[in-house]
Amino acid sequence: MIRAAIDWGSSRFRAYRLNNAFEIVDTRDSATGIKYVAERSFEDIFRKQIGDWLKPGDTIILSGMVGSQNGWVESKYIPCPAYLDDLGSNCTELILDDLTLQFLPGICQSSPADVMRGEELQLLGATESHNSGIFVMPGTHSKWALMKNRSIDRFHTFPTGELYDLLLNQSLIGSLLTSNSWDQAAFSEAIKLGYEDSQFLNNLFLTRSRVLLEQMHSSSVPAWLSGLLIGSEIREGSQLIKDLTKKIFLIGTIDLCEKYGSALQQLKIEYQQISSKVTINAFISIARQMASLRE
Amino acid sequence: MIRAAIDWGSSRFRAYRLNNAFEIVDTRDSATGIKYVAERSFEDIFRKQIGDWLKPGDTIILSGMVGSQNGWVESKYIPCPAYLDDLGSNCTELILDDLTLQFLPGICQSSPADVMRGEELQLLGATESHNSGIFVMPGTHSKWALMKNRSIDRFHTFPTGELYDLLLNQSLIGSLLTSNSWDQAAFSEAIKLGYEDSQFLNNLFLTRSRVLLEQMHSSSVPAWLSGLLIGSEIREGSQLIKDLTKKIFLIGTIDLCEKYGSALQQLKIEYQQISSKVTINAFISIARQMASLRE
Repeated sequence: MIRAAIDWGSSRFRAYRLNNAFEIVDTRDSATGIKYVAERSFEDIFRKQIGDWLKPGDTIILSGMVGSQNGWVESKYIPCPAYLDDLGSNCTELILDDLTLQFLPGICQSSPADVMRGEELQLLGATESHNSGIFVMPGTHSKWALMKNRSIDRFHTFPTGELYDLLLNQSLIGSLLTSNSWDQAAFSEAIKLGYEDSQFLNNLFLTRSRVLLEQMHSSSVPAWLSGLLIGSEIREGSQLIKDLTKKIFLIGTIDLCEKYGSALQQLKIEYQQISSKVTINAFISIARQMASLRE
Repeated sequence: MIRAAIDWGSSRFRAYRLNNAFEIVDTRDSATGIKYVAERSFEDIFRKQIGDWLKPGDTIILSGMVGSQNGWVESKYIPCPAYLDDLGSNCTELILDDLTLQFLPGICQSSPADVMRGEELQLLGATESHNSGIFVMPGTHSKWALMKNRSIDRFHTFPTGELYDLLLNQSLIGSLLTSNSWDQAAFSEAIKLGYEDSQFLNNLFLTRSRVLLEQMHSSSVPAWLSGLLIGSEIREGSQLIKDLTKKIFLIGTIDLCEKYGSALQQLKIEYQQISSKVTINAFISIARQMASLRE
């Protein structure tokens, strides 16, 4: 039977144990994301995390960066437009003694070149309530996807979260920071600047100059930098997706959705938040589909 | 007498010994930039580097990041428009036993906020041959300055070099890189994209997607990333300076000027290269001016 589904990303390992009725009866969550996996010890970690769940003949579904070039098994990409109900039938299989591992595919787009791995599950989960629209999934590599009738029409990635971390923790711009706090007024001002102004590189340096010239306190740097990046992402995303007459559906953690929500509200762009727990619904839907295909 | 001039930046310490006729009779150059100075041991390093040059009563001129918040003595900023002949008379003085140290001021601009420290000397040096025009000084924090009759009218900074290092060496985008080479065709393609397209964040991620989808070899990442950043800087700089009917004067190291020159040529923007050694001329000019003020 299909015993479990695993969302194994860069940072975290999240597993869901399923029963015969495709209900979740147990979960495991640990900080053993693939970037912490030493010497390709994927199987060790997998067995250590959920070995006690498994019985001979079981099938396990896996999604996320575990199926990437640096993961356990590189699974294929489905090209856009990608019908989400095709995910389950496009797995890359790995037989492990008496277990079958099914690595879900990622999604790709040839022009402009883009890739996603993991976010497509959030989109599939979201289709239970919304078949079409613009879906924004903030994160290390934020995704903006245009969905039409349960299929990903096109999407665009912005390395907003990664750049924020690099700039805050490793750059001369972040080096001025002396204390960590959140200045909502600075965030809001920078959202406006990033959204209205396409001089991104110059605006980045502004962060430093404003502090040096005492136009801004150094403790405002995190909020200002976050606003500048998110405002720029919303400008670029809007330009690339174009069809902003539609409402945006926001999928992500509470923290990030709060920041993006506050930015969208300020820019008078209508949005609705969807819980990031939709990933679980997507796993259940794929497990049901796989099981019915075997009958 | 004015015994020496020191260009003490983040990475390097460069000292020039002057004779009575303001000719350079000796130089010292070491990798003891201020970011390598432990526990504010500025005086130790200063004396170790050029102690043997010094006689009681000497004056030494200092420029660069040594006069910043993280430097030895924080010197003032002269606001834009800044007349370059005012540099020498706006020093911040430090008396060190029987020596006088004169820290040259930086330049600031209140709107948009911006600062420079060190590049103003290159501009002063360049005025020997060119009083007015657009001057581009590529580097960690590239500067674009509009000069009018020996004064800096306004200027704009782009953290192009710093971002390039961060992205290539610390990010998931750079992590795909397997070998270091230079792909001039990729550089040229990315220059065009960065110059024509203001979706900077999305284009950054394109670097990664193109490699993952095998549209580009991973060894092309350095050139592509460099082209994207430099092309974006030229787009932003052109928009901010506006007056691009004028020719650009390019001041910098051979390496960087070659890259920027090749980009400007491709974009059909007229430019002329000026040796970065103009800094020495600027020091000599300030030393002469200081000496004559004392007579």
